[in-house]
Amino acid sequence: MSLHGRDLVSIRDLSREEIEEILAASRKMIPYAEGSKVSHSLADKIVAMAFFEPSTRTRLSFESAVHRLGGSCVTIADASVTSMRKGESLHDTIRMLSSYADAIVIRHPSEGSARLAARASDRPVLNAGDGAGQHPTQTLLDLATMQEAFDTLSGLRVVLLGDLKYGRTVHSLAHALSLFGSEIVLCAPPSLELPEPARARLKQMGAKLVDEPNLTRAIRDADVLYVTRIQKERFGDEAEYRKVAGSYRIDASVLKDAKPRLAVMHPLPRAGEIAPEVDDTPHAVYFRQAFLAVPVRMALLDAILGSPRKGG
Amino acid sequence: MSLHGRDLVSIRDLSREEIEEILAASRKMIPYAEGSKVSHSLADKIVAMAFFEPSTRTRLSFESAVHRLGGSCVTIADASVTSMRKGESLHDTIRMLSSYADAIVIRHPSEGSARLAARASDRPVLNAGDGAGQHPTQTLLDLATMQEAFDTLSGLRVVLLGDLKYGRTVHSLAHALSLFGSEIVLCAPPSLELPEPARARLKQMGAKLVDEPNLTRAIRDADVLYVTRIQKERFGDEAEYRKVAGSYRIDASVLKDAKPRLAVMHPLPRAGEIAPEVDDTPHAVYFRQAFLAVPVRMALLDAILGSPRKGG
Amino acid sequence: MSLHGRDLVSIRDLSREEIEEILAASRKMIPYAEGSKVSHSLADKIVAMAFFEPSTRTRLSFESAVHRLGGSCVTIADASVTSMRKGESLHDTIRMLSSYADAIVIRHPSEGSARLAARASDRPVLNAGDGAGQHPTQTLLDLATMQEAFDTLSGLRVVLLGDLKYGRTVHSLAHALSLFGSEIVLCAPPSLELPEPARARLKQMGAKLVDEPNLTRAIRDADVLYVTRIQKERFGDEAEYRKVAGSYRIDASVLKDAKPRLAVMHPLPRAGEIAPEVDDTPHAVYFRQAFLAVPVRMALLDAILGSPRKGG
Repeated sequence: MSLHGRDLVSIRDLSREEIEEILAASRKMIPYAEGSKVSHSLADKIVAMAFFEPSTRTRLSFESAVHRLGGSCVTIADASVTSMRKGESLHDTIRMLSSYADAIVIRHPSEGSARLAARASDRPVLNAGDGAGQHPTQTLLDLATMQEAFDTLSGLRVVLLGDLKYGRTVHSLAHALSLFGSEIVLCAPPSLELPEPARARLKQMGAKLVDEPNLTRAIRDADVLYVTRIQKERFGDEAEYRKVAGSYRIDASVLKDAKPRLAVMHPLPRAGEIAPEVDDTPHAVYFRQAFLAVPVRMALLDAILGSPRKGG
Repeated sequence: MSLHGRDLVSIRDLSREEIEEILAASRKMIPYAEGSKVSHSLADKIVAMAFFEPSTRTRLSFESAVHRLGGSCVTIADASVTSMRKGESLHDTIRMLSSYADAIVIRHPSEGSARLAARASDRPVLNAGDGAGQHPTQTLLDLATMQEAFDTLSGLRVVLLGDLKYGRTVHSLAHALSLFGSEIVLCAPPSLELPEPARARLKQMGAKLVDEPNLTRAIRDADVLYVTRIQKERFGDEAEYRKVAGSYRIDASVLKDAKPRLAVMHPLPRAGEIAPEVDDTPHAVYFRQAFLAVPVRMALLDAILGSPRKGG
Repeated sequence: MSLHGRDLVSIRDLSREEIEEILAASRKMIPYAEGSKVSHSLADKIVAMAFFEPSTRTRLSFESAVHRLGGSCVTIADASVTSMRKGESLHDTIRMLSSYADAIVIRHPSEGSARLAARASDRPVLNAGDGAGQHPTQTLLDLATMQEAFDTLSGLRVVLLGDLKYGRTVHSLAHALSLFGSEIVLCAPPSLELPEPARARLKQMGAKLVDEPNLTRAIRDADVLYVTRIQKERFGDEAEYRKVAGSYRIDASVLKDAKPRLAVMHPLPRAGEIAPEVDDTPHAVYFRQAFLAVPVRMALLDAILGSPRKGG
């Protein structure tokens, strides 16, 4: 793979072929991520975790990936205790970190900050979410989950459910699914529909988009139901929020007419979007999805930072 | 030992024989805990530290134990920066962690949460304190301290001093001491006496309980004086608190008629319960007790998670 | 070197010969700090990071140094989550840490606390800044930066710029430069001049001190321009602060008459003291200075804690 020494800021930085290579490498990493096989491809390497906003799930899965490959971490878990409080620029902070580590994983509340960090650093930068911007490793693990479930990313019917306006995750995922020619069903309340610019960009690359705001109809014939959080803060009115959130809640009764192999996904954490009763159905793949964060991030770190023999 | 792959939620989960085996293994771990011998029995293993309330002492001694055995940690040091803030259930958080680590050490403010976590996780869970519930590794290190001082846990006269009502530590310790047939002297102010249900449970297992609210009389003939914190918050009235706390304060004069080998213990941190002058007497074993946290936790981690050859 | 097992509390604890040995060892550590060579001299060692006030830069560079030498860390990143909140004394906290680690790096807001910690601990203690007190590893990396730039620490003309009253860094640096016979130009606004006691102490050791409050004149013939932060809190009046800070701001025009090899240094983080345009000039060595934190701290840790064969 040609990822050695490269940054990963956006899923758009990767070609379909590169994504396929990462997914293939991720599959091979699964026994290492489970701890049943042992790798030291990051031995004597240090990865800086620069979390300028807390994200326990993303941080711990990246740290786990580093440790599973035999590497070490230096960690900023929370921006409130950094010198950025003292007025330091992101540029200076990243320059510093690039002196203390072999690669930097950055999480930041501001869109575009990961790109800025990549420019400031002479070490590879991996974007772990920059505000309304990108979160490419989330997209890759979403794809890995679908591919594990269906052995393909082509020809699937994928419902994107919930907040398609502000949900960063779904924009990147829709882009990636379009690369592979899967059909995308947009199921959102009127106020949270996919914005027109995003829609236009997807159409331009030949995406198959279908609007279906009705949950029951959307699920029918779907292979994947990708659920996202609908945040209260998006609504002026609490009653309106409750009504919308309630009509998109997934429970056993909603799934009773679904395809037997329908995969229900969620980037987690969930609040009330998926009832716990769904956990015990074969539809629930969201915990598997959470686990796959580790082998996918291992594959990326190995490709970017591992010994050239392995990642080159 | 049969601990391999098991949870440790409560000291009641362990038989007397199992406790004895852990204590024997702990003794062997001492040179490794001091750094004079080197073990790698947790090489390539990851232990998640899930501290939903901060406890620096407990966390660092567990992390030290993991590192002394060659393992790695992924750490939540403080609940306020986790996705539980976003409304995630403990069940979901633990499911996530069990994907990122080979075992989970949990500290949580709510009683019963460690048991809940053990059910959610398919990896071993070690309870590092769940509110008013259990803190079994504290009890084990307390026992290890007494055994090191007296070469036995039977036939000792152990004074439990201070807050016997809310003090989680002493309930578990009294249970364990009763397993070994030591006598327990309860020395508490009227408002902080051992609650009746706890007392009944201990008597049922044949515990030798003696009430002696007077400190001077309690210490006479005692082998161990186990001091706990009396918290101001337990008293409506500051003056009442000061009076009670003052009458249970340990200094050199209080100890002048004690047995020469009386061991003064304290789970630490101490506020004013033990005067610094006691540190220089042979009675002070509380710093040794703090150190023994490491070999005891090493022995447990090794037994639960180490290579089967070692822990099986 | 004779540092094995020793504390490092103040730069005054080190002779000129010891400083020279540390700097020589630091130079050899550079390829290891960059990751191009691999050392395991701290394998199976644990270093406790005890940051009772946050300092991300210092903590991460120490942690990086430990990892680059193959060691592990246990970390208190922030005092607000420690048991010191519960009223525990620094003595007790340090006694605890010395049971969990092979050495302790301490950062504390109170002057004198590192000395107190060194007394409480039976493991080596490294002072990483104690309030208005000492920060000896900062001084060592400042010296390493000058020595790398000029191949000597003697006969240099070093301008100390900005807050010479409260700036802990410059007091220690002036002491060390005087050991090596470099000339020190003091360039400060009237309200932030070097205090008389510090001045007297330096003169007593034969320091060559020159006062030059005018920036342009100070820079002329200077080899090193050591810039420090001028903090708004030091001024009663915001307008006065702006005037002073503005007149000491370093940009390209200020540097146009400087020696071609003038080295501009800064302990970082910078706020507005040095314009970003300076980054692209050959004068900017502050990022190199930030990097050198790692090999200098590696050399110290190796000397204090490494296998005697290496550090002895």
